[in-house]
Amino acid sequence: MGRALAGALVDAGLRTTVWNRTPGRDRELLDRGAAGAASAAEAVAASEVTVVCVVNYDAADAVLRRDEVAAALKGRTVVNLTADTPARARDTADWAAEHGVRYLDGAIMTPTTTIGTPDAVFLYSGPEDLYEEVAAVRQALGGAHTHLGTDPGRAAAYDIALLDIFWTAMSGYAHALAVARAEGVTATQLAPFAQGIGAILPPLFGETAADADAGTYSGDGNPLTSAASSMSHIVHVSESHGIDAGVMRAAEGMARRTIGLGHGQDGFLRIAEVIWDYLGDGASSPRSQG
Amino acid sequence: MGRALAGALVDAGLRTTVWNRTPGRDRELLDRGAAGAASAAEAVAASEVTVVCVVNYDAADAVLRRDEVAAALKGRTVVNLTADTPARARDTADWAAEHGVRYLDGAIMTPTTTIGTPDAVFLYSGPEDLYEEVAAVRQALGGAHTHLGTDPGRAAAYDIALLDIFWTAMSGYAHALAVARAEGVTATQLAPFAQGIGAILPPLFGETAADADAGTYSGDGNPLTSAASSMSHIVHVSESHGIDAGVMRAAEGMARRTIGLGHGQDGFLRIAEVIWDYLGDGASSPRSQG
Repeated sequence: MGRALAGALVDAGLRTTVWNRTPGRDRELLDRGAAGAASAAEAVAASEVTVVCVVNYDAADAVLRRDEVAAALKGRTVVNLTADTPARARDTADWAAEHGVRYLDGAIMTPTTTIGTPDAVFLYSGPEDLYEEVAAVRQALGGAHTHLGTDPGRAAAYDIALLDIFWTAMSGYAHALAVARAEGVTATQLAPFAQGIGAILPPLFGETAADADAGTYSGDGNPLTSAASSMSHIVHVSESHGIDAGVMRAAEGMARRTIGLGHGQDGFLRIAEVIWDYLGDGASSPRSQG
Repeated sequence: MGRALAGALVDAGLRTTVWNRTPGRDRELLDRGAAGAASAAEAVAASEVTVVCVVNYDAADAVLRRDEVAAALKGRTVVNLTADTPARARDTADWAAEHGVRYLDGAIMTPTTTIGTPDAVFLYSGPEDLYEEVAAVRQALGGAHTHLGTDPGRAAAYDIALLDIFWTAMSGYAHALAVARAEGVTATQLAPFAQGIGAILPPLFGETAADADAGTYSGDGNPLTSAASSMSHIVHVSESHGIDAGVMRAAEGMARRTIGLGHGQDGFLRIAEVIWDYLGDGASSPRSQG
């Protein structure tokens, strides 16, 4: 991802200095016109804006939180597009503030192949003036960029929630492929119908959002009890073929527990309230919005 | 759903006799022009084709597998649109064959509100001549109808696999709403981005199908190790807010186990092979296709 980001900056004609923890991995970028640097400190000293994208914040910290790098970054801007948790993003923002580093956190929601194209999706949080100041960098990276608020953890919070949807759905798809195969149905045979089912999801996400925020969770025509019945069938068929059904067992458990609490005629999303045992004691109170 | 189906048949001008286990629930259909019946046996005796749709096969059996109903059905056709497992569908087809009942199994993939509209999706399996013979009924029900093969369990197999995708994805969405709320992000705020993530899924299902059937599971640019890292973040953030992460823990477990078996650089769908410990001893051999 780092190479895709740097490549987009180079292609857009921005003066770009690259550094990678593994020597030699910058070769292709240097050929395309990027400048090289012998160290992270030298790289960050070369520009007003540093874009960081590594595997997680442990890796980012290992690069950024060294005396010579912090000194070189003083008064300059870091745009950290590394994916991790909201707490880690906030912690890094605190570190940056302590060291006089201007810090914008971000998350990339699309694959490396989208970088520099209209399909890329970037989320940001932190100081709005920094978001505005890095407009040239954002433009070079292509796609859609959204500033979500000043809380530096907010981009990571969206990232986590969206990846939660994505990887849970992909787990369901992988599991469905195993069940289908056990029943003599190939992925290719299932695909057009899987695409049809997948296409139902985005409008459903839109239609149910206001209901979920209001806590009404209408179950009109599709109560939670009906979903739980389907989930039982899926577990039963999977396990009758020797296929692990741990994911669906956990999902059905949430549904059964929500029914047990008296919400069987509500819509499926009622489980969102039950899996979060919000005690109202402040210890687990929701963060204020904004 | 039964009322929606019968209503569509009435609206299409087909002579329709209705029977419901709960007396009085046929009132609206009688007002619209359906004929009533005092018993299930009387209802099935009134037409050449009987459409059955109840909560599951236990309920369907309770209606169909009685001497007077079986006698009335002899030589006639049953289209069973009840959802259950492939094994139950095959068992009911066997029962029908023993009693001289012509049997077509089916599954409805869309909500009640789609019945009688172009948005409805129906799957069928069983004798192809029966599928052709009930063309007038299919046309009256609206939407898209597909005959998947002669194995009577095949429609249920597709149904289970597709509901596996749908309910797993919805579980991820419900969980994401809880995580988002704990971070001060409303469902309405998340919705446009959730819709963007959801829109990635259908093309991905199409693109990866051939790879999955071939067993190649290319991880280009998105290896399983990277997915597992995201999954860990999701578990960590959820549990730090006191949100149950059982579904994602189970999903991450599948990913970690697949990595442990040496597939860390493969694509995510490799887990489809690991969760199905196919022993090759015949006991769990895949059904032949067709």
